[in-house]
Amino acid sequence: MKYISSADIENLDKVYRINLINSITGYKPANLIGTVAANNQTNLAIISSVVHLGSNPAYIGFFSRPGSVPRHTIENIRETGYFTINHIHSSFIEQAHQTSANYPRTVSEFAQCGLTEEYLHNFKAPFVGQSQIKIGLSFVEESLIKTNGVVLVVGKVEFIILPDNVLQPNGSLDLSLADDVCIAGLDTYNKVSPITKLPYARP
Amino acid sequence: MKYISSADIENLDKVYRINLINSITGYKPANLIGTVAANNQTNLAIISSVVHLGSNPAYIGFFSRPGSVPRHTIENIRETGYFTINHIHSSFIEQAHQTSANYPRTVSEFAQCGLTEEYLHNFKAPFVGQSQIKIGLSFVEESLIKTNGVVLVVGKVEFIILPDNVLQPNGSLDLSLADDVCIAGLDTYNKVSPITKLPYARP
Repeated sequence: MKYISSADIENLDKVYRINLINSITGYKPANLIGTVAANNQTNLAIISSVVHLGSNPAYIGFFSRPGSVPRHTIENIRETGYFTINHIHSSFIEQAHQTSANYPRTVSEFAQCGLTEEYLHNFKAPFVGQSQIKIGLSFVEESLIKTNGVVLVVGKVEFIILPDNVLQPNGSLDLSLADDVCIAGLDTYNKVSPITKLPYARP
Repeated sequence: MKYISSADIENLDKVYRINLINSITGYKPANLIGTVAANNQTNLAIISSVVHLGSNPAYIGFFSRPGSVPRHTIENIRETGYFTINHIHSSFIEQAHQTSANYPRTVSEFAQCGLTEEYLHNFKAPFVGQSQIKIGLSFVEESLIKTNGVVLVVGKVEFIILPDNVLQPNGSLDLSLADDVCIAGLDTYNKVSPITKLPYARP
């Protein structure tokens, strides 16, 4: 077994450290966040930190780190108040990954990366045409982590669009029917297949 | 395609709504958090909301919802200042899931669920013997989401223990070599296998 102390981590090469710490939390969800600026310039960013925050009302969040590529995303959300979350499937992994490149705010990752801007139900923010599972959200709150300036962006679910067959009789989603992928570290995209479904646990 | 509005979500049956909103963020990491109370009573809780918050210093967080089962976890962290994160592998899914049952604070989920309490490098909080990838963390900060009272618990990585072969030459982890699983919704455990590894994206 390998033992890596906090002092070891501080002394690591920067890229090695980023790879390590981005890997040690386990597998991450793969989503694209779509936004639009006040001047109507659209933006699309791959985000692996989307989290469930509450079911009633339905709140979802994601993290924005100071100076990181998704900063255009949070700027747009502050300006226009809406964003979309779009699941990534195995059919468009390369295009989704390409949105992590550091494009200037004056170009749209939709056009640059070959993904389709889609407007649905008069919602202000753009969805990804290639994605089968889409969520429209309104901006609720920014929660600051004082320790390192990271911001949790909180949104309320305004609506969900998904294929009929993915929605199961008990309300859960069979993500494998949409070929959803998950992410390991910063660069590895993975296929997922169910092993088991377990009943509600009681003591 | 199915369209579900925020009004639809509010009117859903409670269990159906919880299944839906816990599924729509995509696949989630599968971890067990080990803690100990001031009176030395240990606790173990399955958590699907572990997130990377920063690499230098290395910060990791997880969410604690008011009234939810992991509340003993946050109480212990407040009392003693330390916690462990332990990856869940396919070999002990049932035992890990069983920690989600609502046990009283006076019993330990380690003993109740058949998982081994392990103490390493004089660290105060217990690790899971069955887990191959383990992180010891010190409590840094609680960040409150005002909208619904959910708390983000932030920890600093004190050390990492993992098998030599899982650690790759660039610092990333090959989680498939440890048979790590991921979670969909509240009850489905999944096998994960790499599709592709993509280079750092440039415009």
